[in-house]
Amino acid sequence: MSDTVRIGMLGCGTVGQGVLRILGETAGTVERATGHRLEVVRVLVRDLQASRPGVDPALLTADPEDILGDDTIDIIIEVMGGLDPTHEWLLRALGHGTPVVTANKQLLARHGPDLLAAAEEGGSDLRFEASVCAVIPVIKVLRESLLAAEIDSVTGIVNGTTNYILSEMRRSGMSYDDALAQAQDLGYAEADPADDVGGADAAAKMAILASIAFHTRVLIDDVPYVGIDELQSDDVDIAGELGFVMKLLGVARLVDGAVSVRVHPALVPGDHPLASVSGADNAVLLESTMVRQIMLVGPGAGGTETASAVVSDVLSILGSRPGSFLAGALADAGLPMAAEGSLESAFYLRLDVADQPGVLARISAVLGESGVSILTVLQRGEGESARLVMILHRSPEARVQEALGRLRDMRDVRAEPVLIAVVGSGEAPR
Amino acid sequence: MSDTVRIGMLGCGTVGQGVLRILGETAGTVERATGHRLEVVRVLVRDLQASRPGVDPALLTADPEDILGDDTIDIIIEVMGGLDPTHEWLLRALGHGTPVVTANKQLLARHGPDLLAAAEEGGSDLRFEASVCAVIPVIKVLRESLLAAEIDSVTGIVNGTTNYILSEMRRSGMSYDDALAQAQDLGYAEADPADDVGGADAAAKMAILASIAFHTRVLIDDVPYVGIDELQSDDVDIAGELGFVMKLLGVARLVDGAVSVRVHPALVPGDHPLASVSGADNAVLLESTMVRQIMLVGPGAGGTETASAVVSDVLSILGSRPGSFLAGALADAGLPMAAEGSLESAFYLRLDVADQPGVLARISAVLGESGVSILTVLQRGEGESARLVMILHRSPEARVQEALGRLRDMRDVRAEPVLIAVVGSGEAPR
Repeated sequence: MSDTVRIGMLGCGTVGQGVLRILGETAGTVERATGHRLEVVRVLVRDLQASRPGVDPALLTADPEDILGDDTIDIIIEVMGGLDPTHEWLLRALGHGTPVVTANKQLLARHGPDLLAAAEEGGSDLRFEASVCAVIPVIKVLRESLLAAEIDSVTGIVNGTTNYILSEMRRSGMSYDDALAQAQDLGYAEADPADDVGGADAAAKMAILASIAFHTRVLIDDVPYVGIDELQSDDVDIAGELGFVMKLLGVARLVDGAVSVRVHPALVPGDHPLASVSGADNAVLLESTMVRQIMLVGPGAGGTETASAVVSDVLSILGSRPGSFLAGALADAGLPMAAEGSLESAFYLRLDVADQPGVLARISAVLGESGVSILTVLQRGEGESARLVMILHRSPEARVQEALGRLRDMRDVRAEPVLIAVVGSGEAPR
Repeated sequence: MSDTVRIGMLGCGTVGQGVLRILGETAGTVERATGHRLEVVRVLVRDLQASRPGVDPALLTADPEDILGDDTIDIIIEVMGGLDPTHEWLLRALGHGTPVVTANKQLLARHGPDLLAAAEEGGSDLRFEASVCAVIPVIKVLRESLLAAEIDSVTGIVNGTTNYILSEMRRSGMSYDDALAQAQDLGYAEADPADDVGGADAAAKMAILASIAFHTRVLIDDVPYVGIDELQSDDVDIAGELGFVMKLLGVARLVDGAVSVRVHPALVPGDHPLASVSGADNAVLLESTMVRQIMLVGPGAGGTETASAVVSDVLSILGSRPGSFLAGALADAGLPMAAEGSLESAFYLRLDVADQPGVLARISAVLGESGVSILTVLQRGEGESARLVMILHRSPEARVQEALGRLRDMRDVRAEPVLIAVVGSGEAPR
């Protein structure tokens, strides 16, 4: 690449404008450090007239050919989002040998393997740090530093909106609805928060992380997810009394040579590294025999933070040999996906039951018959009914689900049982 | 570099043997991911007869020329330690164009800038992830991901021995001596722990981190340090009551365009990200306007963990364009070092005083006259004497030291005052 690196950018929203600003502000540092002058020469936008403070209107074009068809462009930055026509455009650029930096989580979670393969065939490069946890350099660390570390598991708080809501529920005892409304007021949640609170956003990110960590093709459809929208503040409180903190976790791990990736609410022990990650922060815990536990924590969203990750990727492309670290990101290990229900975990189980003699004995008997044993019980009278909270010993999930089916049918059990996995160092709280 | 990468290794202790083992175990992954077969072709040792389980004796040599003088060697790994002749040997290799990976913290903290300059002149590369916090990829993240992030501060728990001792003192209330003895029993502290508990080890690591973060020449002699060997468990306990956690911190920051780097015991608020880093773990908190706060946590020592960082550096060299990310690590910004005493901080002050009427008033008056104001006071009778603990508002350090000089001369003050900086988000505990 010549001393001046010519960049074409697709899209110019908050992140794109942040990229232009950061490239301007850090031009001196970047040139001293890399020997390159980075110049954005063309920016594709839909509406040429929209307000973009500080952006030179002469850079703008509404014609994608001005970027995709320009052989003098060295790197393409994609911050327009969407799947179509983005997918097709990036395939074309990569196949043509032009390295691409993208912040497009949805695209990566659906077409990441194809795009990486196109990059390899085209002798180009594809970087996507900004697609997961913004500026936390988890993709680079997995793809480069831990390339040979034989990762066993990736456990992440990868959605800031839900972590903020859960942190507030815990801190102030407020309800889910109130905490969500507060998150919306403060800009931590969108007007339509469904993708965040329902777990789909976290599932997309976990698909990307798992595919890099395990060198295996994992797409968003491979990731079952449960969000936090059904959680009750009672459970957050009771979990707290028992020494646990409620989190929406993405859990990707190797189970008997297969890859299991899920997103669900989970309890972590109070002294677990992820327990203290509060507010809108994200964190990813990487485990392997070789490196034990490495955790990366930071802001998982934000225009400047995301733009900063994009710039970081551009610098990584400049510093890398073409194609390096690409093969490691490809699905070359080809591990199978784990069957559902094959996992083992400790569980938190809440049952609202009739407050009658013998109810605990009857419920314990049902659990025992399913081979599920109880570590801790907390019973509380609540007028005519009682609340039973149990921490169940580590058991195969299928067995716990079977017990749950039988509990649902009992006359003693007055409401839908609440079952939440306990994730972390062993089954006992602190 | 050809498909087979020929590696020469200087030294073959715990880390070196770990490198050989990891390269063996991960050969398949590495070849799939990088296209290279990594082969250690020669290992320099002092004693050819020493026991090295699993190491092929045919690789061993006692003659450094077998590595330094062999033009067919592509990469040199230095895990022999020491300053002399290591410094000279690495200068020779780098100047000759051979990339070097080293785990040698003391060498880097004293001669890092010269070695980097030699690498640049020789068109080679110098990587040293393993020299700071073992496998936590803080050097790569600072040098590559955050190259243009304009770091404002690097705050680190970079010594596992002291973090283990302080964690145990806090957890169980044991004395410093008992906690140290326990750390020695468990292998977290050396038989001679002076470098760890005295702060010199942390100072070397902070010099390396600061030089990369601020693109400035920072050597170990630029880093004043105070260890934890004079700390009393009382202060750990009282700090806990006030909502703080005691840590041995390395603090590197920009102060009015100058670089300040220090190592000292410090109190962090209980909800500060570094407060929950316990046991022998290390953590580094990186702050900048662009990325806000990123924290990396993990094991900061261990043979396998350190060896894994060495292997990671070898892979980084294979994946990088020659010389890339090198200029950024050089001292090209050339910032001055901040003058001592020019810093501002909140402080914890403990005074053991005569339990007489008016003593608090007299001490407050002295502080007030020096322009130091008090945020919190805790007074406790202890027989004939009393213990006064104060949290002082943020003040210039020189001013607090001046007040301390006057307090030492007071008849009311019965023992050497204890002064500990409060580091973290504002001055108030949670």
